[in-house]
Amino acid sequence: MSARKINLAILGATGAVGREMLQIVHQLNLPYNNLVLLASPRSAGSYLEYSGKKFPVEEVSGDSFSDLDICLANAGSDVSKVWAPVARDKGVIFIDNSSAFRLDEDVPLVVPEVNADSLRDHHHIIGNPNCSTIQLVQVLSPLHKAFQLKRVIVNTYQAVSGAGKKGLQELENQLKAQAAGLPLVSSKFARQIAGNVIPQIDNFLANGYTGEEMKIMLETKKILAINDLAISATAARVPVEYGHSESVQIQFSQLVSAHDVRNVLADIEHLEIIDNPETNLYPTALDIIGNDNTLVGRIRQDMLGKDWISLWIVSNNLRKGAALNAVQIADYIIKNNLL
Amino acid sequence: MSARKINLAILGATGAVGREMLQIVHQLNLPYNNLVLLASPRSAGSYLEYSGKKFPVEEVSGDSFSDLDICLANAGSDVSKVWAPVARDKGVIFIDNSSAFRLDEDVPLVVPEVNADSLRDHHHIIGNPNCSTIQLVQVLSPLHKAFQLKRVIVNTYQAVSGAGKKGLQELENQLKAQAAGLPLVSSKFARQIAGNVIPQIDNFLANGYTGEEMKIMLETKKILAINDLAISATAARVPVEYGHSESVQIQFSQLVSAHDVRNVLADIEHLEIIDNPETNLYPTALDIIGNDNTLVGRIRQDMLGKDWISLWIVSNNLRKGAALNAVQIADYIIKNNLL
Repeated sequence: MSARKINLAILGATGAVGREMLQIVHQLNLPYNNLVLLASPRSAGSYLEYSGKKFPVEEVSGDSFSDLDICLANAGSDVSKVWAPVARDKGVIFIDNSSAFRLDEDVPLVVPEVNADSLRDHHHIIGNPNCSTIQLVQVLSPLHKAFQLKRVIVNTYQAVSGAGKKGLQELENQLKAQAAGLPLVSSKFARQIAGNVIPQIDNFLANGYTGEEMKIMLETKKILAINDLAISATAARVPVEYGHSESVQIQFSQLVSAHDVRNVLADIEHLEIIDNPETNLYPTALDIIGNDNTLVGRIRQDMLGKDWISLWIVSNNLRKGAALNAVQIADYIIKNNLL
Repeated sequence: MSARKINLAILGATGAVGREMLQIVHQLNLPYNNLVLLASPRSAGSYLEYSGKKFPVEEVSGDSFSDLDICLANAGSDVSKVWAPVARDKGVIFIDNSSAFRLDEDVPLVVPEVNADSLRDHHHIIGNPNCSTIQLVQVLSPLHKAFQLKRVIVNTYQAVSGAGKKGLQELENQLKAQAAGLPLVSSKFARQIAGNVIPQIDNFLANGYTGEEMKIMLETKKILAINDLAISATAARVPVEYGHSESVQIQFSQLVSAHDVRNVLADIEHLEIIDNPETNLYPTALDIIGNDNTLVGRIRQDMLGKDWISLWIVSNNLRKGAALNAVQIADYIIKNNLL
C-alpha cells in the first residue's frame, strides 16, 4: 500500500515548535505535495529554510484551509479556537498542539505509541497532548497494561523552551545580564528564572493547582482511559534550555520489582532505558539533544513499599513533547488512510 | 540566669558552611570567650574576617580540643571521624555537620524547633542533619503532631552550594564558558550542571537510591521518632546557586484540608507561609536571600484524595540547612546549661 501524497500546512510555523515541525515533516518523510507555512500577520512575509529550500510564511486566512488535507497547529489556544472549526468544516484534519480541544469528548488525544487506535474515530480535530504528559504516558501505559496503576505522583523539572522562543530568550538574557553584573528583567516568567526554580507553569486555578498540572493529570487519565486514576502532579520550571525531566512514584495494584519494570519498558518503541547506578548512568536533560527517544532511568523499588516504583523520565519537550508527536499523528493518519 | 561564656571552635572554617558559621555565631550573639578557627594544613595560616575583626585559621590538632567547650564541625565525614572522638574524650561538645555519626543511637540528631529536648541526653557528639532533611522536618513535625503522617513523598531541587565552594565555582565556570562559547568542564558534579538537572547527589547504593536520598529518609525518621514512617525521597541538583526547593506530597491518617495545614504551620517558629495563588505568590529559591526562615507555599489539597496535601518548601541550604541550625544547637546547649 502506498499512501497518497497530501497537502499539508503548519500553522504557527515560526515558533519554537513550528520550526521543529518543519524539520520533522522532512525527517519522517511525510509524503506531501504542498507544504504551506502559516502564521499571524506579524510573522507573515518571512521565510523558513529546510535543507536549502526556502518556505514562505503566509498569513493565515479562511482560504488557507482550501485544498488542504492536514494542518499541524501550534499557535496557541486562542488561534486554534478560531481556525480549528474552519478547518474541520472544510474537511481538513487539524492536529492541534494547544490545549483548546484536548479534553473535548469527540477529540482524540493521541500519543501514537500509546493510543493510535483512537485516531480511527476522529472528527477532524485531534489533540496533541501537553509535553509533560506525552513522556509520562509513554512510560505509564505499558506499566499499566502489565501491572495496573493504583497511584501516580509526578514532579517535573521543565525547560524554559516549553514557554517558546520568548522563554529561551528570557533565560539567555538573564544569564548574560548576570555575567555582566547588570539588572535582570523578567517578563515571560512570573519570577527570575536564572538561578531559580519557579513552581508555577501556566495560571493558578481555584483548587491551588496550575493549568500545567491540571493538564498533566487530566490528559494522562484521558490518554490511558482511566477516569478514576489517582494522580498528583507538581510542575516546576528550572533554568534549563531543552528537555523536561520528571520524577515519578508509582503504586501498582500488585507487587512489582525494578527488574519487572525494566523488562516491560525495554521492549517499548521510542523508549530507551539509561540506568546503571554502578556507573552513575541515568538520563539528564542534556542527553535528549539529538535523541528523539524518551529516556528512562533511576528505576528502583520505592521505599514506600514493594508495590511502589520510582523512576526518572527525560524527553525533548519540543520534539517528542510537541512537534514530533504531532507529525507522528499525521504520519499514522496518512499511512492508515484515515483522512 | 545568665549563661556562662564558652570557648568555641569552628572546624572546617574556610568552607562555604564554615564561613556562614563565623557570621551566625556573631549574629546570634553566642557568648564566647575564645573563638578558634580550625582547618586542614592546606587552609591553615589564612584569616577570616567578621565585622572588621580578623580571625586566624589554625591547623587542627589534638591540642585544639584542650580548653574548648564546643566545636562546630563542617569538614566532612572523614575529618569528623578523626576528631569527634578526640573532642568527646576531652569533654568537648562536637556538633557535627557531616553524616558520620548522625544515625548512631547515642548521637542526638537535632533541629532545635523540632527535637531540642533530645539534647538533654547527649554524649558530647551531636548530629546536625542534612540540609534537605532540616527544612522538611520543620514542616512535617508540626503536621505530624496535628494530623499524624501516613506517607511522605519528597522530590528535591537542590542548589549547587550544597556541594560547597567547588560546587558554586563549577556552575559559575560553566556559565561563563557557555557565554564565551568555550568547552564546559565538569569535575565536582557527575554531569554538566549548567542548563541541566542531575538526579544524583552523593553516591549510589545497592538499592538504587543515592546517599542524599537515604539521608533524607533515615534522618527524617530519626528526628520525628517514627521508625516505620513510609517516606520516599528523590534528590536532584539544579543550576541554582543558593536555596533548596522541595515538592512534598503527604498522606495523613485523617482527612486534612489546605486550610487546616495553613493554620497549623502559621504558628510555628522560623516557618513563613508565602502562599497566595491569586497573586502568583509562592516561595522560590531566590527568596531565601536575607531570610533565615524556612518558606512554605503551594499548600493545596492533593488530587490523590482528601487525606493528601501537597506543598512546596524552600530554605537556605547553607544557613538553616547547615550553619544556622548548628549554631542554634550550640545556643540551646549554652542557654540550658547542657555543657
